[in-house]
Amino acid sequence: MNGGIKLAIIVGLPGVGKSTVLNLAKDILISKGYHVEVVNFGDYMFKYVVSQGLVKSRDEIRNLPLHIQRKAQEEAAKNIRENLEAKAQSKENVVGFVDTHAVIKTATGYWPGLPLHVIRNLMPNTIIVVEAEPEEIVARQLRDRTRYRSDYANIDLVKKLLSMNRMYAIASAVLVGASVNFIMNREGKANEAAEELVNVIERL
Amino acid sequence: MNGGIKLAIIVGLPGVGKSTVLNLAKDILISKGYHVEVVNFGDYMFKYVVSQGLVKSRDEIRNLPLHIQRKAQEEAAKNIRENLEAKAQSKENVVGFVDTHAVIKTATGYWPGLPLHVIRNLMPNTIIVVEAEPEEIVARQLRDRTRYRSDYANIDLVKKLLSMNRMYAIASAVLVGASVNFIMNREGKANEAAEELVNVIERL
Amino acid sequence: MNGGIKLAIIVGLPGVGKSTVLNLAKDILISKGYHVEVVNFGDYMFKYVVSQGLVKSRDEIRNLPLHIQRKAQEEAAKNIRENLEAKAQSKENVVGFVDTHAVIKTATGYWPGLPLHVIRNLMPNTIIVVEAEPEEIVARQLRDRTRYRSDYANIDLVKKLLSMNRMYAIASAVLVGASVNFIMNREGKANEAAEELVNVIERL
Repeated sequence: MNGGIKLAIIVGLPGVGKSTVLNLAKDILISKGYHVEVVNFGDYMFKYVVSQGLVKSRDEIRNLPLHIQRKAQEEAAKNIRENLEAKAQSKENVVGFVDTHAVIKTATGYWPGLPLHVIRNLMPNTIIVVEAEPEEIVARQLRDRTRYRSDYANIDLVKKLLSMNRMYAIASAVLVGASVNFIMNREGKANEAAEELVNVIERL
Repeated sequence: MNGGIKLAIIVGLPGVGKSTVLNLAKDILISKGYHVEVVNFGDYMFKYVVSQGLVKSRDEIRNLPLHIQRKAQEEAAKNIRENLEAKAQSKENVVGFVDTHAVIKTATGYWPGLPLHVIRNLMPNTIIVVEAEPEEIVARQLRDRTRYRSDYANIDLVKKLLSMNRMYAIASAVLVGASVNFIMNREGKANEAAEELVNVIERL
Repeated sequence: MNGGIKLAIIVGLPGVGKSTVLNLAKDILISKGYHVEVVNFGDYMFKYVVSQGLVKSRDEIRNLPLHIQRKAQEEAAKNIRENLEAKAQSKENVVGFVDTHAVIKTATGYWPGLPLHVIRNLMPNTIIVVEAEPEEIVARQLRDRTRYRSDYANIDLVKKLLSMNRMYAIASAVLVGASVNFIMNREGKANEAAEELVNVIERL
């Protein structure tokens, strides 16, 4: 028992099945007596910029000056950590999952989701990188036309993105001494990936 | 519009055609009404060590104790940022390019060009990594005997260096929450690479 | 001559022959008049937690809360640096080797051996990454049954680990502006690897 809260950041490229694995793992952990909190990093960022009267809709965030966006990221991270620690004051066995990205690909480049000013405030025990076989990521993109993103339908680009995702996760983990876990979500076997994730959390 | 200055660090291995792409992009940006400043990081470092009476020639820098070299890097970064911000006080649409390296290969190893004490003072919006096909990098080396460096004439080593360059750029970007853009400079198509770079700058 | 101490962190996956190369390099350096200190990072960490009455055996360290482990890492790094600098007060040509890992694979993930709070206190000149051909790492594991670790007997996993090791070393080096040297230890040629290491140290 490490005492206090166990905080895991969970990341993964679109199409790897991150939400499925996370929800399954959450159910298993609850059934084992853990108190599980899942927070979405983007929600906290949005809440902060709205509270400051900076934006009204989510799409406006990306138009804010970069130093304001950085400030919002930093405040979101602090608020998440504080809220999770407050939970751990009144409850036993608290597990906090922060749902976010190691890297976000946009028209202005690959943005780190866990830069120094974010991760040093989250202070995670571990970063969970959910991965899938490149072929499966592409197949899911081709099936799910509603969320279709052409980037993720090209096998070579998907391989490059998976490798990039690892580099970003590692570079972030080194900033705070967190571990990185790469969890493979195989087609039709999300329950196995969830079990693997639960195993990591329990041993932390 | 993000307001204030847009600062891009531009890096690339020898032989990728960084200067060509940068100069073409500068011309396009000027024609579009931007005020473009290109600064060379090494020049600023040299200026600092000369101002401190530490060296007389550029070659002496590498013989300075490491903590002095680190200090010089830090001061160069601060001076660059200050000068660019001063420009942005009196001019609109200022774009600053800092010409440097993500990694420098020497007899004492691979040195990071953008360590924490440098990049946190430059505070870039983005790092532009100019790349080229390994075959083209090798071909350029074999053609240009005046600047010949045997490292860059070995295709496997060039592939390794390109991959290493990416890792260094990503590790640096995560320190400040800057984006990374990988821009491919194809043989005879430097204008396309320059257009791509301009697109990134305009959207920042 | 850079003056003061030359500090090299030496890392490598199990089975690459790190100790062999390090001991050979130490002998060569001593024969050349250097004063060589080799310190084991884990020993210093253990010494610290014992001094604080936190554990009695080494195995207990991993059961300490993460923030205590981080504190112990930080204090170990500070103590190492201080001890080496004290040596350099009374002796000329001091070379300090810190024997540790860039990454440690455990049941709770890949842990960075050189996170920010460690490396900024060690302040190395260089990180030496001893490597070997994946085939040789596997062959050594299969031969040496007493230290057998199944992870290192799978060639694809060993390739992945070697690549991961590089990413961790680079991410750590960028935090302090240290160089990274990748030294290949070929079967039966540890003396060549040691010579290469000595060359780096002498030129630092």
